[in-house]
Amino acid sequence: MHEHIQPVALEKAYRLLNHGPTVLVSSHHDGVDNVMAAAWACALDFAPPKLTVVLDKATKTRELIEKSGRFVIQVPTVKLLRLTHEVGTRSLANEPSKLQDTGVELLHLAGDTLPFVAGCSGWLECRLVPEPHNQATYDLFIGEVVAAWADDRVFYDGHWHFETAGREWGSIHHIAGGHFYAIGEQMSARPKRGG
Amino acid sequence: MHEHIQPVALEKAYRLLNHGPTVLVSSHHDGVDNVMAAAWACALDFAPPKLTVVLDKATKTRELIEKSGRFVIQVPTVKLLRLTHEVGTRSLANEPSKLQDTGVELLHLAGDTLPFVAGCSGWLECRLVPEPHNQATYDLFIGEVVAAWADDRVFYDGHWHFETAGREWGSIHHIAGGHFYAIGEQMSARPKRGG
Repeated sequence: MHEHIQPVALEKAYRLLNHGPTVLVSSHHDGVDNVMAAAWACALDFAPPKLTVVLDKATKTRELIEKSGRFVIQVPTVKLLRLTHEVGTRSLANEPSKLQDTGVELLHLAGDTLPFVAGCSGWLECRLVPEPHNQATYDLFIGEVVAAWADDRVFYDGHWHFETAGREWGSIHHIAGGHFYAIGEQMSARPKRGG
Repeated sequence: MHEHIQPVALEKAYRLLNHGPTVLVSSHHDGVDNVMAAAWACALDFAPPKLTVVLDKATKTRELIEKSGRFVIQVPTVKLLRLTHEVGTRSLANEPSKLQDTGVELLHLAGDTLPFVAGCSGWLECRLVPEPHNQATYDLFIGEVVAAWADDRVFYDGHWHFETAGREWGSIHHIAGGHFYAIGEQMSARPKRGG
């Protein structure tokens, strides 16, 4: 699998998130890994790339991020639909074996303990930009993207290729209660050249 | 058209935005209307419902929102693909007739001067929650949703019905440079009941 994971230039990292997919958030602190799902993640800036993510006070991932100052935002695919729902509805706080039970496979793309979820299409390694007021008042966290990767079977040359990669590579977009939509057909709003 | 625009309960308003569509942002101040596109809008809270939107300092819409304290986030459809791209790439600052030139049709669902864009599938009327540090540092604006509506040909009973409403009702999700993806097929991560 690793041979398909390629770096994404930081100036194009926002494109991994621009279409609003539901994401997985992973973090590590003091020997503990966790992964949760988040529909409320969004690009915030181009250069340096930043993003926002909403992390409820009840989540263990929030605690790991506050303590370690690092996290990963990654884009799950249709293949990970069930897993995304499972890690989004079960908590490490009352299920210490959550990651094993849900079958999450972790990678370590940054070369250290920071966990990345295998099977995703894009990964954004983030450094927490501390904003205590936002975190306390709105559960709103800001990350600066320090590195990014994508699977070159669906994202290459700075673009998604959902239309040729096959249905199983589509991003998934949660509405409520386990109901998702996959990303659909490509459309261009630009006039065709030479036509 | 108006007979299809129905109120959405505030506790379900987040669902209009949860799947990460590119949105249109509209506002009004002192006789001036504007509409822009934004890919970086995201739900922030359930009750009361709140959302975030990133508004560059160069946009006229930002000035209107800062002065009036009100704005609308609305979900354009495939039918509004070209219009979404046009209002996202042209500025009222140097094109006073932008709205007429791009063919934007405005509604007034709140019963006053606040402009809503016709042809969308969902509308979130927002009150600005002033956060000067976020606005100045990150171009990040927070809105509290005070009312919501949807077109009942694609959103009813608290849910999107993209799968039956027809392709032209799909939400659109911008990547970069006028390249979008439409929302795609429905998927459920929940075990089937009774099966």
